[in-house]
Amino acid sequence: MSKFWSSLAKQVDPYIPGEQLNDDTIIKLNTNENPYPPSNQVIQAIDEASKNLRLYPSPTVDELRSEIGEMYGLSQDHIFIGNGSDEVLAFSFMSFFEPGNRIKYPEITYSFYPVYAKLFNISTDVIPLNDDYTIPVEHFYNSEGGVIFPNPNAPTGIFLEIDQIKRILENNPNQVVIIDEAYIDFALESAVTLVEAFPNLLVIQTMSKSRSLAGLRIGFAIGNPELIIGLERIKNSFNSYTVDRLAIAGAIEAIRDKDYFLQTTTKIIESRSYLKEQLETRHFDILPSQANFLLVSHKEVNAEVLYQELKKQGILVRYFQKPGLENFLRISIGTPAQIEKLLKKIDHIIKPSP
Amino acid sequence: MSKFWSSLAKQVDPYIPGEQLNDDTIIKLNTNENPYPPSNQVIQAIDEASKNLRLYPSPTVDELRSEIGEMYGLSQDHIFIGNGSDEVLAFSFMSFFEPGNRIKYPEITYSFYPVYAKLFNISTDVIPLNDDYTIPVEHFYNSEGGVIFPNPNAPTGIFLEIDQIKRILENNPNQVVIIDEAYIDFALESAVTLVEAFPNLLVIQTMSKSRSLAGLRIGFAIGNPELIIGLERIKNSFNSYTVDRLAIAGAIEAIRDKDYFLQTTTKIIESRSYLKEQLETRHFDILPSQANFLLVSHKEVNAEVLYQELKKQGILVRYFQKPGLENFLRISIGTPAQIEKLLKKIDHIIKPSP
Repeated sequence: MSKFWSSLAKQVDPYIPGEQLNDDTIIKLNTNENPYPPSNQVIQAIDEASKNLRLYPSPTVDELRSEIGEMYGLSQDHIFIGNGSDEVLAFSFMSFFEPGNRIKYPEITYSFYPVYAKLFNISTDVIPLNDDYTIPVEHFYNSEGGVIFPNPNAPTGIFLEIDQIKRILENNPNQVVIIDEAYIDFALESAVTLVEAFPNLLVIQTMSKSRSLAGLRIGFAIGNPELIIGLERIKNSFNSYTVDRLAIAGAIEAIRDKDYFLQTTTKIIESRSYLKEQLETRHFDILPSQANFLLVSHKEVNAEVLYQELKKQGILVRYFQKPGLENFLRISIGTPAQIEKLLKKIDHIIKPSP
Repeated sequence: MSKFWSSLAKQVDPYIPGEQLNDDTIIKLNTNENPYPPSNQVIQAIDEASKNLRLYPSPTVDELRSEIGEMYGLSQDHIFIGNGSDEVLAFSFMSFFEPGNRIKYPEITYSFYPVYAKLFNISTDVIPLNDDYTIPVEHFYNSEGGVIFPNPNAPTGIFLEIDQIKRILENNPNQVVIIDEAYIDFALESAVTLVEAFPNLLVIQTMSKSRSLAGLRIGFAIGNPELIIGLERIKNSFNSYTVDRLAIAGAIEAIRDKDYFLQTTTKIIESRSYLKEQLETRHFDILPSQANFLLVSHKEVNAEVLYQELKKQGILVRYFQKPGLENFLRISIGTPAQIEKLLKKIDHIIKPSP
C-alpha cells in the first residue's frame, strides 16, 4: 500500500493470467492459445502495414468493423473493436452495468468478471452451477443489473444452447445480457443470430483463440447499434486508438481467409475428440467441452500433483487453486504431436514404472 | 441516450481526436505525427516477431521496461508500459486521483484531461495560464488531489524549466504530480532526472511523436516503483495484455536505434526554427514552441478561414473551436518539402492575387 494510491488502486484485486514462460522448449497448453500460426495472409498484411507506422491508426476502425459485420450479415454499426476481448469486457462493464444494481454471473466462470466488478464497483449476484457444471438457466432471469457469462463457459467448456440464451434474454428485457463467446468458433453456434431480435444482447468475441492471434490483441463486440454507441462513448473517453495499425491490418485478413480458419478450427475440434477419448481410457473424468480445451480430473491422481509433474517434464497445463476446481486441470488442445507427448508423459506419471 | 447505458456512459463527454483522413495525397500536419518513418530496425523486429503471433505477449513487458529504464539509468521497476500515453494517462487518473479531491491542470492544455476527469468522476481546479500562455507555477502548489500538465504544454508548445517543476513537486508532497512529456524529445530536458528524488513524480512519455510510432500504440510512465505498482494493479484489473507482440518488439528497437532517433529529432527541431522564421515574415504571431508543432495566429487572417482554405488546398492543420484558442492554428512540423508547400499555400491565401 502506498499513500499515493487512490482508494480504487487499494481496493482492486487484480487478475493473474496463466504463466507465460519465455522458453521455446516447453509445450504450452495452459492459456488456450491456438497451436497453429495465423494465416499467411495475416503476416503479409502486417508487413505491408508496417510502412505507415508513423501515422495514427483509424480511431473508428471502420474497415475491420465492416469486414466482421459482413461475416455475420450485419452493418458495421453493429460492431465494436477493442484491444483483446478483455478490453471489450472492461468497456462493457463501464457502459452497461451500474454500481448498486447487482449483475449475475456463474460461480465457476472466467475469473476476470469478479475483478471487473471490484474495479468498477458493481455489486454481484454469483449463481452456483448445476451439479453437472451446466448453467442453471432460470437463475439468470430477472437480474437487477445485467447478466454475463461465457458460452461455451470457461473453464468448463460446456456449451449452452441458443434457445436457452433466448429465454435469458426474454427474461431480462431491460438489462444488458453479455454472452462472452471467446471459444464460440469451436462450438455449435453463435448467439449473434439473436442480435437483431434482442436489443439487450451483446456478444463478445476474440481473435486470440480461433484466429491464432493472441499476440495481436483484437477483440470485438456485436450488438444493437445503440449498445455499440454506448461502448464508443466510454472508449473515446479512455483512449482514442486502442488497436494499432498492424493489428487492424492483420485482423482484416484473418477474417478474409475463411479456408484457413475452417481448416485449423476443424483440426482442433478433431484433436479435442481424440484427446478426450485417450484421456478417458486413462481414467480421467472429462466435462463435455465445445472449446479449445478440456477440463479434466483423474480418478486417482491429484490434479496439483499432475500439474507439477507435467511441468517438471516440460508440459504446462492450467491448474486453478480455486474452490470447486481444486481437482481439475484445464488442458488446451495442442497439435497432434503435442498431444502424443502429453499422453506419454501422463502415462509415465499415472503408471510409474515399478 | 439509451435505456441500456449506465449513468457513466450517459455522463461522459468523449474526446474527439484530430481528423484521420484516408487520403495519401493530403499533407497531414494536424495530429503531430512524425514526418519521418520509424527506424529500419523497428520494421525488421516487427517482421521477426510476427512469427509468434499465436502466443500471448508478455503481460509484464519486462524486456521493453528494462530497455527504457536503461536509457534513463533506472531499473525496470521504475517503468510502466501502456497502449499509447492516453492509456497510461487513463490508468494514472484511476491509480492516483481520488473523486472528491480536486486536481489541478491548466485551462489551456491537452483536452483529454477534462474527459478523464468526467469519466472517473474526479473534481477539478482548472488554472488559467498567464497572459503570455506560460504556466503560473505558484498556482499549482498545495493541490487537494494532485497535479497534471504536459511539458512542453499542448497546444502552446511552451516548455517549463525543470527547477520550476521541482518547486511544484516540493509544494505537493502528498499528491501525485504527473508531467505528461509527450513532446519532451523536442525540448530542452526531461523531468525524469527528478524521479529518484521525488516519490510523488510520475513522468509519462510516448513513442507516437519522437519515435515515429503513432501507429503502434506505445506509451510509458516513469516513476518511483511504488507508483508503478499502483499502475500495475489497475492495469491488471482492466486488461492483462494491452501492448501486443509487434508493438513490444518494435518499441525495443526504437529505443535501441539512438542514432536514427537523434537524426530525426534534430531535423524536426531545425525545421521548427525555419518554419517559425518564415511564418514570422508572413505576419504570424507564434508561441515559443519546444514541441514538434507551432501554435500560430495571423495578424489579419482569421484562423478558421485559414484552416478551411488550407484544407481545400490539401493541407490539414489543427483548428480548435475552443475558448482562448479561437484564433490559433496548430501546425505539426513536416518535412522540408511539406513546409515549402505549406508556405506557398499560405502565401496564396494571405496575399490573394488581385
